[in-house]
Amino acid sequence: MTENPPEAGVITQGIEAALPEGALAEQLASGRPLRVKLGIDPTAQDIHLGHVVVLEKLAQFQRAGHQVVLIIGDYTARVGDPSGRDTRRPVLSAEEIDANARTFTDQAFKVLDAGSTEVRFNSEWLDMPVAELFALVGKVTVAQLLAREDFRKRMAEQRPLSVLELLYPILQGYDSVAIRSDVELGGTDQTFNLLLGRDLQQAYGQPGQSVITLPILPGLDGEQRMSKSGGNYVGVTDEPGEMFGKLMSIPDSAMATYYELLLAEEVPDAPPVEAKRALARRLVDRFAGDGEGARAEAGFDQVHKRGEIPEDVPEVDLDGGDAAEVHVPALLSRAFGVSGSEARRLLAQGGVRLDGRAMAPDRLDVPRSELAGRVLQVGKRRFARLSG
Amino acid sequence: MTENPPEAGVITQGIEAALPEGALAEQLASGRPLRVKLGIDPTAQDIHLGHVVVLEKLAQFQRAGHQVVLIIGDYTARVGDPSGRDTRRPVLSAEEIDANARTFTDQAFKVLDAGSTEVRFNSEWLDMPVAELFALVGKVTVAQLLAREDFRKRMAEQRPLSVLELLYPILQGYDSVAIRSDVELGGTDQTFNLLLGRDLQQAYGQPGQSVITLPILPGLDGEQRMSKSGGNYVGVTDEPGEMFGKLMSIPDSAMATYYELLLAEEVPDAPPVEAKRALARRLVDRFAGDGEGARAEAGFDQVHKRGEIPEDVPEVDLDGGDAAEVHVPALLSRAFGVSGSEARRLLAQGGVRLDGRAMAPDRLDVPRSELAGRVLQVGKRRFARLSG
Repeated sequence: MTENPPEAGVITQGIEAALPEGALAEQLASGRPLRVKLGIDPTAQDIHLGHVVVLEKLAQFQRAGHQVVLIIGDYTARVGDPSGRDTRRPVLSAEEIDANARTFTDQAFKVLDAGSTEVRFNSEWLDMPVAELFALVGKVTVAQLLAREDFRKRMAEQRPLSVLELLYPILQGYDSVAIRSDVELGGTDQTFNLLLGRDLQQAYGQPGQSVITLPILPGLDGEQRMSKSGGNYVGVTDEPGEMFGKLMSIPDSAMATYYELLLAEEVPDAPPVEAKRALARRLVDRFAGDGEGARAEAGFDQVHKRGEIPEDVPEVDLDGGDAAEVHVPALLSRAFGVSGSEARRLLAQGGVRLDGRAMAPDRLDVPRSELAGRVLQVGKRRFARLSG
Repeated sequence: MTENPPEAGVITQGIEAALPEGALAEQLASGRPLRVKLGIDPTAQDIHLGHVVVLEKLAQFQRAGHQVVLIIGDYTARVGDPSGRDTRRPVLSAEEIDANARTFTDQAFKVLDAGSTEVRFNSEWLDMPVAELFALVGKVTVAQLLAREDFRKRMAEQRPLSVLELLYPILQGYDSVAIRSDVELGGTDQTFNLLLGRDLQQAYGQPGQSVITLPILPGLDGEQRMSKSGGNYVGVTDEPGEMFGKLMSIPDSAMATYYELLLAEEVPDAPPVEAKRALARRLVDRFAGDGEGARAEAGFDQVHKRGEIPEDVPEVDLDGGDAAEVHVPALLSRAFGVSGSEARRLLAQGGVRLDGRAMAPDRLDVPRSELAGRVLQVGKRRFARLSG
């Protein structure tokens, strides 16, 4: 007797779309073990809860006996965009890419079963003779690619789109040809690329993969997608106390989504703060180990409950923008109305605390992730909970 | 004492445009020997008078002490368009390409000085590692390429344009980078590609080439551009008699253009038929050898003047369309109003003549080039001069 639900049913739950219609159901009904692809960009290292949504879905496939294939996009990352036009694609060295890939897979194996996961690097097939590349790009039309929303938009706004950028989705799609994937997973923002992979497989005489898109997890602000660059993320290797505190800072409105996407459950019928504590405990347990959730909660309470910090503290937004770091004097000005020079003086005197601990007087710029969800304190009585 | 005009002056004569404005004049004024590029598509073999316009301009550069570089586009021809969408680009074998290239250069050296011409194959640099190709295509934007008139049109009309086709002009432009050309020549229809070569050179930190476009020579019909596929061409290896006859068939209205583009002269002040004879004689002399023009003219006269064929014969158009062959029975129907079956009977009886010689009874389809400019004859008294 097992407590696991029938996995084929679970697989189609909590997804945004399965395309084309009926294809996935047919594949699952065949009983054949499927090759299930996830492409990974090795320019980022740490996995956050946004990635976990997709990894969790892959884990469900694994438990149902399917073959998960992780594709590390090392080749595309190594090439980067030499035009320097697309700053989102830094060119990395082989060593950096390997290190990032290792970090990513190590962390992914907190969710996936390492032993049964196939990990491939796309340099294995993308470092092809130019003639083969020409054969590949001859199978795709310009119109097909310019249908992609962001391409279309950049063309319409007359912002530069290099021919190389046009090639990336083709290369990514060719990964599906190379590993003969049956299913590919991605965020809803990847729908175009995933379907292009299907088209390319068919152009190469293979059955086309089906495509599963997953909803995008909002970040700690409850609005923007969770991302490292957005500074609104919870990393799976965050310290238990930090993870707990960050999760306690998500707005109540985002809780249902977190429950659904990360725990595949509905929000429990309990006061929001209790439901949030349960969510934070369970996620800390999952990534830091059983019992760590309760320990983190106790630490949280020690600071917040035992009078050191009042229960009810006004919220201060960490401010939007893409910056990964927050300038502490500016934050103090905004939170407590002090002048810049006073803020610096307070910092220098050790009069600024974060979750009850004095902040270092010389760190004027602090990563957003160290602040989100914490309580900032000046002197004995002025507090602000940092959100966003 | 020499009869040659100062070559720098000649170089800027009879051209359609020199771009960007002032660049060529500055290069010529510098007195530095220039590297002057012409790209050649080795999917065609024989050179016709349309090519001669450009080759003649190259010869002027040579005589002024500049270095002419012929680029055989063997690599692009070998890759072709694997999508099969663009039927204008057949994929050729290496042997066919080499044979075509040899034929082309042999014929080009009727105009150019072989000893001082540099001939290069672009496979020498285009068969590059994929990473270098990525660096190359990263320097060009999609919008830049879609500005090309035929691309723009195909996109607008929603006809397929493969990503590979988008790459061709980039590859062709890279030829200029590889050989560090100072000047590139082409037809007016090549303006976009030539200027892209300039842009790429600058993206690679080289001085950008200047670009000379030349007017396009009309074919025997006096209207469509001269081309093999149009069946309205005079090949530089045509038999002297055939070349003479074809040139006598061009409409008077096209004569000024032929004089300007092929002889760099104005039409002489003489009756049109005399001017045409002089043009035909001189071109036959040039391509078949001195004296061949007069010999061809005598042959022409033998047939046309000495009563065998009247001087004044009605013209019949060979009919438009792209077909390289003409169906003789249909032509006879059109020229003389005979029925299809009668036409076949006349042919079978040897009653159909071309320039006075009986046509073979079993050749129902005859290459257009064998007919253009000749006189078709049925029986003793019915004649038609074939044009177009």
